[in-house]
Amino acid sequence: MSTRLKRLFPILDWAPRYTRGEAVNDLFAAVIVTIMLVPQSLAYAMLAGLPPVVGLYASILPLIAYAVFGTSRTLAVGPVAVVSLMTAAALAPIAAQGTAAYLAAAVTLAFLSGLILVVMAMLRLGFLANFLSHPVISGFITASGILIAASQLKHILGIHAEGDTLPRIIEGILGRITATNIFTLLIGVSSVGFLFWVRKRLKPRLVAFGLRPRLADLLAKAGPLAAILVSILLVAAFGLDRQGVKIVGEIPAGLPPFAWPVFDGELWVQLLPAALLISLVGFVESVSVAQTLAAKRRQRIEANQELVGLGTSNIAAALSGGYPVTGGFARSVVNFDAGAETPLAGAITAIGILAATLFLTPLFRLLPQAVLAATIIVAVLSLVDLKAIRRTFTYSKADFAAMAVTILLVLLVGVEAGIVAGVALSLLLFLWRTSTPHMAIVGQVPGTEHFRNVDRHAVVTDPRILSLRVDESLYFANARALEDRIYAEAAARPALRHVILMCPAVNLIDASALESLEAIADRLHAAGVGFHLSEVKGPVMDALKRSDFFEHFKGHVFLSQFEAVRLLASETGAAAIAANGASVAPACHRLAQPLSAGIVTPGAG
Amino acid sequence: MSTRLKRLFPILDWAPRYTRGEAVNDLFAAVIVTIMLVPQSLAYAMLAGLPPVVGLYASILPLIAYAVFGTSRTLAVGPVAVVSLMTAAALAPIAAQGTAAYLAAAVTLAFLSGLILVVMAMLRLGFLANFLSHPVISGFITASGILIAASQLKHILGIHAEGDTLPRIIEGILGRITATNIFTLLIGVSSVGFLFWVRKRLKPRLVAFGLRPRLADLLAKAGPLAAILVSILLVAAFGLDRQGVKIVGEIPAGLPPFAWPVFDGELWVQLLPAALLISLVGFVESVSVAQTLAAKRRQRIEANQELVGLGTSNIAAALSGGYPVTGGFARSVVNFDAGAETPLAGAITAIGILAATLFLTPLFRLLPQAVLAATIIVAVLSLVDLKAIRRTFTYSKADFAAMAVTILLVLLVGVEAGIVAGVALSLLLFLWRTSTPHMAIVGQVPGTEHFRNVDRHAVVTDPRILSLRVDESLYFANARALEDRIYAEAAARPALRHVILMCPAVNLIDASALESLEAIADRLHAAGVGFHLSEVKGPVMDALKRSDFFEHFKGHVFLSQFEAVRLLASETGAAAIAANGASVAPACHRLAQPLSAGIVTPGAG
Repeated sequence: MSTRLKRLFPILDWAPRYTRGEAVNDLFAAVIVTIMLVPQSLAYAMLAGLPPVVGLYASILPLIAYAVFGTSRTLAVGPVAVVSLMTAAALAPIAAQGTAAYLAAAVTLAFLSGLILVVMAMLRLGFLANFLSHPVISGFITASGILIAASQLKHILGIHAEGDTLPRIIEGILGRITATNIFTLLIGVSSVGFLFWVRKRLKPRLVAFGLRPRLADLLAKAGPLAAILVSILLVAAFGLDRQGVKIVGEIPAGLPPFAWPVFDGELWVQLLPAALLISLVGFVESVSVAQTLAAKRRQRIEANQELVGLGTSNIAAALSGGYPVTGGFARSVVNFDAGAETPLAGAITAIGILAATLFLTPLFRLLPQAVLAATIIVAVLSLVDLKAIRRTFTYSKADFAAMAVTILLVLLVGVEAGIVAGVALSLLLFLWRTSTPHMAIVGQVPGTEHFRNVDRHAVVTDPRILSLRVDESLYFANARALEDRIYAEAAARPALRHVILMCPAVNLIDASALESLEAIADRLHAAGVGFHLSEVKGPVMDALKRSDFFEHFKGHVFLSQFEAVRLLASETGAAAIAANGASVAPACHRLAQPLSAGIVTPGAG
Repeated sequence: MSTRLKRLFPILDWAPRYTRGEAVNDLFAAVIVTIMLVPQSLAYAMLAGLPPVVGLYASILPLIAYAVFGTSRTLAVGPVAVVSLMTAAALAPIAAQGTAAYLAAAVTLAFLSGLILVVMAMLRLGFLANFLSHPVISGFITASGILIAASQLKHILGIHAEGDTLPRIIEGILGRITATNIFTLLIGVSSVGFLFWVRKRLKPRLVAFGLRPRLADLLAKAGPLAAILVSILLVAAFGLDRQGVKIVGEIPAGLPPFAWPVFDGELWVQLLPAALLISLVGFVESVSVAQTLAAKRRQRIEANQELVGLGTSNIAAALSGGYPVTGGFARSVVNFDAGAETPLAGAITAIGILAATLFLTPLFRLLPQAVLAATIIVAVLSLVDLKAIRRTFTYSKADFAAMAVTILLVLLVGVEAGIVAGVALSLLLFLWRTSTPHMAIVGQVPGTEHFRNVDRHAVVTDPRILSLRVDESLYFANARALEDRIYAEAAARPALRHVILMCPAVNLIDASALESLEAIADRLHAAGVGFHLSEVKGPVMDALKRSDFFEHFKGHVFLSQFEAVRLLASETGAAAIAANGASVAPACHRLAQPLSAGIVTPGAG
């Protein structure tokens, strides 16, 4: 079988060698994940403003698609909190929740983001995800978690409230708080308390009671399901739905419907920005989880193939009446911990969810919405990472600025505005930082061939020679800063005869910087000052040689700064250099080499 | 007088010491520039879709404002070709040419871009102009020149034609070409030919005839004025305006009117993007010219004060019924060559233009539009620099891509789309280039302390130690690439015990890269491989120390790569390192220092 085929269908890699031992492990993991995924799917669909059954639909076919195309052995795809919130935000301006148009738009959104992911894979654009910086993602997820938790409070209180930003949500809740339903509140608060207790305390306690860890784990993971079953029994026993406790209501049983995205140009254009963001955010979240888990077992994730896996998962979600999905953090960790060995665990989970969809949906009719809200709140609050904010603040003000803007905009304006502003700001800040590069005037450490910053070390300098080290690639954003600095330094040194630009940290010289170097050389030359380069890296030198730079350049290119200063100092000392530079032979890299034979340039090559 | 005041009003620097010699030079330069500026002002106003007199208005007060606030001694501001084209593009969707609303919007546009420039000065945002890379500006100006020249062809042919993109312009001209007016065509073609001849040949010929260069220069610069006067005489003598030759028509004589921008929120929002682009492009063009000229006389340009100078010039243009202005290349060079010594030359030019506005406008009634079009064509074709395209292509495909996209979009879609796409693409390409950093596995050059790329040099490596040099700052866009590379290299080396990341070219480690380094350290550590850093720069080390990185980091930070390999090789050789890294003392920068006493790290500090 060709490697190419195996790369496109990772299933071909593991399926032929599937063992009975792996099957047992996969089956056990699938059972646990199914138990966890059923309530989550219902809850996240509600968060996305969709009927709960849509969450189940989104947890069947996408899992099969990922099992075929994904490269992670243990990633569990399906509806997740952040993407559900983004879906709700994307669909809000398009249709009202509960309408057929809203549902159709959700399906189209899933199809569109699947398409985007597959196209990104074909164009090998997986690297685009790298532009979402860590602080921006971390801030985005923290803020989304807070926003989601706040938005679920109304279900805990049993009131109606609108609002998609934190101030509006709070305002909405405060305005209706007197309408709180006491039964709903009791169910909601005790569910939240119970679920937190299960998450933090149950497993160690069960293990202390002597249960095998694996069984303890299974029981702990069944916590949400237990809360659901108990609450359904309570509602049924006391007729709480007639006391104002809002329930999920009738869920249609049966196979997922075959759905088809709406092919409406205007709708696609409207959904495109949101689909793009959902694709990128989903991809980043998913790949991070997959890589973390793969590294633990020394497996590898192919970012571009992951795009195919997630893309087909979303297209599968669309075709079976679901909504956008991605690899979830919590469920993947559960899958991994429970011992899943191959993507077949995902496929078995899909069968489990299908069974639930076919046979268990009547059971969920009396399920209080407050319990689903409690499930969501407990899940998303674990995403909130306030320590990361503090850590980022200490390490880098620029990173913190990007994070803070992301958090504030997500909370105050919306998820899309938050992530777009965060990405734009982090890019701008990076460009701004590189646009004011660190430059150091360097001098010789006495008795050595090394040159160091004059401000940090006791070094020797020659008033006729200025050695400037630039600690950044030279490109359009910082080329002018370099020019300004050199002119300013030159103007302040009447005795100056030579400027040497030391380039060990210059990894790139773009066309704009090349023009600046030419301008610097011309202007210094006109003022009777020589301009030279030293310690230019191999790839940078290769690029310079491709240009016509050396046709005009009258200076030397020295392999080492030591050689540069030694030669120029002796020359300048022996005879004053002619103003037109005639006494300096037109030099190129090759010419300078014999002068420095035996000198190995640190950092070059 | 305080330096601060002098910095805000550069006029205070030169005016008190103004000499008679400077006055003579300034006067002579002002006469030449006035002769050149009168026809250009009329022509560029026509290009912007405005009545010709608006071009004159824009050449009076703005020059005075720049003389007071500008830092260049020789920059000549006023209407320029590219900004006129951008003005026409900005106003097209807002009002029809020739209406009062169009004129009012032009005034508002000038006011708005003046305001933007002044605000940018206050926020010290002059560095934003650096984001316009050389290839993008060069491509933009070349494409604008082609577009402008094509748009003027209709005046040469004497036909009506619409269109603001190259295909539309060509289509429009071809559709009406049978309506060509033969008299207009004769005047137009002979004007273009005459002006090209004047520009290229006249001055050397006059000098060869024995004229003094300065007088020859004056005569050559008067070429456009001569073409104008001759054509007016021809029209008057043969009544060509009754033969279908389109003339400029009545120009109101008198002082520039006092105008006031329209304070209409919706209009401002509509004009804002265009005003922003006009401000940036105008600023970049102007500063480039000013810096080139200032360098020749060893004067200095303050970019932020230039923002004030151009900003007040544009506000002055708005208040006197003009439209956006900036420092022009051709006229500034003329001003400089003619010997202008202070901004007073600009102020005298303003008086000259004012005189023309007051007394000469009746003269221009019979001026054929074809002659103005010829003036524009000859001026803008000198902006077209096809060699730069070729040069950029040879040097860097990425820079060429940004340039090509700018040119194509300007020609095919519009000036604004072109420059926005060019800037966005050049930023993305820079990020993409730094997102796939150059990394080299290095080995020791035998008999030295230096480490070089194993692919380029004959070096010695130890199978238990991987030395990887990364030639780029580490930040969010390339952090994942680093992780991937290290995991891949580690997976391919079963005997590996230590990875040393050599950082002499790392100028920045942002929060995302920091997390990646932590992840790399954790994963390698879990696999029984040590992870170390070497040759970390001072500022980067300072930042790392501010974080909690070293609380978890189990590796060493070595001042030199040589020291790193020497120590780790001897350690690894003596006793197999424990999987938990216990035999390697938790190290920090300070701890590593004694080991390498006497070793000076190149590139660090």
